[in-house]
Amino acid sequence: MNKLDTRTLETALAETADAVAELLDRLLPSSDGPDMRVCDAMRYAVLNGGKRFRPFLAVTSAELFDVPRMRALRVAAAVELVHCYSLVHDDLPAMDDDALRRGKPTTHVRYDEATAILAGDALQSLAFEILAEEETHPTPRVGCELVRSLAKAAGAAGMVGGQMVDLQAEQMAMDIGTITRLQQMKTGALIAFSCEAGAILGEAPKAERHALHAYAHDMGLAFQIQDDLLDIEGDAATTGKAVQKDQAAGKATFVSILGVERAREQAKILADQAIAHLDIFGEKAELLALAAHFVIMRRH
Amino acid sequence: MNKLDTRTLETALAETADAVAELLDRLLPSSDGPDMRVCDAMRYAVLNGGKRFRPFLAVTSAELFDVPRMRALRVAAAVELVHCYSLVHDDLPAMDDDALRRGKPTTHVRYDEATAILAGDALQSLAFEILAEEETHPTPRVGCELVRSLAKAAGAAGMVGGQMVDLQAEQMAMDIGTITRLQQMKTGALIAFSCEAGAILGEAPKAERHALHAYAHDMGLAFQIQDDLLDIEGDAATTGKAVQKDQAAGKATFVSILGVERAREQAKILADQAIAHLDIFGEKAELLALAAHFVIMRRH
Repeated sequence: MNKLDTRTLETALAETADAVAELLDRLLPSSDGPDMRVCDAMRYAVLNGGKRFRPFLAVTSAELFDVPRMRALRVAAAVELVHCYSLVHDDLPAMDDDALRRGKPTTHVRYDEATAILAGDALQSLAFEILAEEETHPTPRVGCELVRSLAKAAGAAGMVGGQMVDLQAEQMAMDIGTITRLQQMKTGALIAFSCEAGAILGEAPKAERHALHAYAHDMGLAFQIQDDLLDIEGDAATTGKAVQKDQAAGKATFVSILGVERAREQAKILADQAIAHLDIFGEKAELLALAAHFVIMRRH
Repeated sequence: MNKLDTRTLETALAETADAVAELLDRLLPSSDGPDMRVCDAMRYAVLNGGKRFRPFLAVTSAELFDVPRMRALRVAAAVELVHCYSLVHDDLPAMDDDALRRGKPTTHVRYDEATAILAGDALQSLAFEILAEEETHPTPRVGCELVRSLAKAAGAAGMVGGQMVDLQAEQMAMDIGTITRLQQMKTGALIAFSCEAGAILGEAPKAERHALHAYAHDMGLAFQIQDDLLDIEGDAATTGKAVQKDQAAGKATFVSILGVERAREQAKILADQAIAHLDIFGEKAELLALAAHFVIMRRH
């Protein structure tokens, strides 16, 4: 990745992040009544300057099919709401027990546990509400498909199931196959939805939808391996969260099984594979190709 | 309510409860992989012999519009999944801290807190997945409307917002208006959705939909007042949960503000009002009328 590419990608990431944050600000509820606390906590959990990588994937995938930008941004907002709700719940004392997220106190530290649980629950509802609205797509068939796909990616067969396995990872004998499956569920499913959502919005042919799925699959795994590497190599100041937690917990990760060098190689191979899946789109998919490079180069 | 009416209603309730439990058993995920634990906990939280009152309302409302039974049962299942997820989360130590539900250990006691949080999260996703499927309604416009309506009823402006206010009730000066609003959000919104869902499935005219909403509103409040009365008067063996918790916590309820006698009168007035809203449907709505009587007569 040369400097120009880095700048192109960073500009695109920043633009999407700003646009989706602005939209989220409009879509999140406010209240001056006694339910204000949960609305405030929802905003705190979401409007936190996140890098909005999933929204970027949704918006950039949708551009391949000339989807009107506001529709893509609404789907991007819904994905981010699910991602943020999962972070709020994963950070709880009963789960990963994290006090720091993006350099700020986690939601249950800033508010309290009950409020954090409820805020997460309401963020999930809001994501589905947005997807089913006419402003997201005028054809209800598309709305229903978005809801079904996000629900599958978020539920027991996807993100939540992956977090369940991850919580048990300390007690389990994990081989590389189990970890791969775990990560495909825990982070891969939502990343895959983000990419596929562009194709759903664009009512794209099956072959193109499958290509995006395959891209997302490999890129998502590369993303996770890099996360594990950063947990070993990063420092809290750069990553904005506690590091070396996996190692301290004696938890099997890609890095603990493969070692740092082979894990880094594997991430590179997966990123290259991801990019190869984009051939079907030609030059139009350049930003997505840059993103696959980015996930293994990032420092946080 | 004479004996014959009681039997008619009890038979109808039992029939719906059996049918929806059978459907839920089919719709809930199973796994023999490492994500088994969350699937088991989801089943434990839902397949617990609940009275399935919300499913009954959805199915009985749908019958007014000759909706095919399986469609109504699927919506009933979705509502029950949201209801059950909210019970799992509300029972957590950080929230109401209940160890007993329907005479059995609550989900976090039987499993653990992390599993209970995740099971609740996945139950919510599953509810929306079911609503957006073609088997629920072949017209996607109806599917999208069901998703939007349930999301609103479940989210910050509905059930979750109500639970947030309820948690703060001990610290707040509550008048009867605030408690009414709290209960409309906490339990009323999902009960109203259950009734309105029948009209949505039946693509009913606005007047009939509004009549069901008004019925649900008054009946839902009567239901809640009865709950408060049972908390004072009931015993744990009959209600299957801990009682007199509100009083012990010094929490304002309809009963603590109105007193037992006036609360009982108020519940009766609301039930009668609820029944009056059903006039538009004539004799067809007899079961819903019986249900409004039932909510203020029940002992658990």
